[in-house]
Amino acid sequence: MDITVKILDQINRNPFYHVMGIQVQEARGGKARSRLQPKSAICWPFPEQPHGGVLFTLMDTTMAWAVWSQLDDGYTCTTVDLDIHYTMPAKSDAFLCAAWSTHKTGRISFVRADIQNSKGQLVAMGQGAFRIIPVDLLK
Amino acid sequence: MDITVKILDQINRNPFYHVMGIQVQEARGGKARSRLQPKSAICWPFPEQPHGGVLFTLMDTTMAWAVWSQLDDGYTCTTVDLDIHYTMPAKSDAFLCAAWSTHKTGRISFVRADIQNSKGQLVAMGQGAFRIIPVDLLK
Amino acid sequence: MDITVKILDQINRNPFYHVMGIQVQEARGGKARSRLQPKSAICWPFPEQPHGGVLFTLMDTTMAWAVWSQLDDGYTCTTVDLDIHYTMPAKSDAFLCAAWSTHKTGRISFVRADIQNSKGQLVAMGQGAFRIIPVDLLK
Amino acid sequence: MDITVKILDQINRNPFYHVMGIQVQEARGGKARSRLQPKSAICWPFPEQPHGGVLFTLMDTTMAWAVWSQLDDGYTCTTVDLDIHYTMPAKSDAFLCAAWSTHKTGRISFVRADIQNSKGQLVAMGQGAFRIIPVDLLK
Repeated sequence: MDITVKILDQINRNPFYHVMGIQVQEARGGKARSRLQPKSAICWPFPEQPHGGVLFTLMDTTMAWAVWSQLDDGYTCTTVDLDIHYTMPAKSDAFLCAAWSTHKTGRISFVRADIQNSKGQLVAMGQGAFRIIPVDLLK
Repeated sequence: MDITVKILDQINRNPFYHVMGIQVQEARGGKARSRLQPKSAICWPFPEQPHGGVLFTLMDTTMAWAVWSQLDDGYTCTTVDLDIHYTMPAKSDAFLCAAWSTHKTGRISFVRADIQNSKGQLVAMGQGAFRIIPVDLLK
Repeated sequence: MDITVKILDQINRNPFYHVMGIQVQEARGGKARSRLQPKSAICWPFPEQPHGGVLFTLMDTTMAWAVWSQLDDGYTCTTVDLDIHYTMPAKSDAFLCAAWSTHKTGRISFVRADIQNSKGQLVAMGQGAFRIIPVDLLK
Repeated sequence: MDITVKILDQINRNPFYHVMGIQVQEARGGKARSRLQPKSAICWPFPEQPHGGVLFTLMDTTMAWAVWSQLDDGYTCTTVDLDIHYTMPAKSDAFLCAAWSTHKTGRISFVRADIQNSKGQLVAMGQGAFRIIPVDLLK
């Protein structure tokens, strides 16, 4: 699936990403990059520190885009499982997430992702499996 | 730590839970229960279906409350890792999460959690480890 | 699939289980139970304590039997992923593993498992996903 | 900890590695490499294909060596959790595992690992957390 800048622009305007502060920056060939600019509402219980669930959301989202970028038209994906490890306190004005598919079969894509703070330090690492399903199945 | 109804009331009013639609209902003796009433903003990309990251947030939050409820005063916890499996599409007007500590050492509490839809069907299961740290360490 | 005592007897004599000290005791309706009697060769680096990989093997095996017990003839399963947490040092003369499917779709079975020492204490907990595939696919 | 060739030679002769067919090849600066030459006894239920628990053991072992190589004398490590994903059927005459620490705090080291078949294809990927503890604690 060719994910153009136009598609990303459109997607990045959805209300969920807006609430979270997520922006997908690129998705191509089984890889994706995104950025989180944490808003105060999602920094809880520690000020200036996004909730662990927000970092997970950033990771899950970026992984899904990495997978979508390698699918044929008419297919989509859903998360089977995702394992996240938080390596250090996530205090930063911005976070960058990179996700990449490590192996893809007909039905499953395996993915890894890293989240770094604005100093380039690893704050979370993840890996998971995504099911590849025909869009029709969701209707 | 004794988590009274008054404490829960106060906590449940924080902006993050409000955005997400999360309410912690009980936390006692290493167990906790919570409820998610998904708002439209966090139902994306599928209408009426909270994003996987929101279900993760519900789970992580409820696990943390389960752990807090078994800590002495002056201690708090942070997520080391959490593994979540999505067992079926999460389309429901409400979700219930139950979390319970399976084993606690001096420094780590191991936790499991289930999320059910309003029909009582399992939509996600998780397990993880939480580090127990003195509150002073965060200052 | 009906897993009789006769089938279990036969299976339990395979060389791999023998080396490990594993015995499957029951598999029925999406649940399975097994037992590990650790031999000295697999207790390393700590004497009388099976390697973490042996406990994982016990868990993975028992989960697979739980899944097989709920499949139709002509189907088998393979592990997609398994997340294991070691909750305490595993020093015991015997270990019991219980595994149970928490949800099954047409293609995937989600499973949890516990391993207890001979005092009934939890030493490891796990969860994972198993793909259900036609036996023909393996040929 | 400086892990010399002499130490590795000694370690590689332990009965557990022998049964499994594991050889640790290098451990230095938070990274380790090892090799599995599967013996027939551990290839079950599929001939020429090591049991998933054997691949896990290879991964867990290699991760532990990666962690040991970054510890001061007097410290050791134990697995808190390990999440493994099996990306393709593991049929090969040999497997190579590479493990690397992604972040180390005073008490925990976070690690990732890959296992490849002899064609260089990824057959399993993992990530986990290891607790760092004084050797005295084990006595």
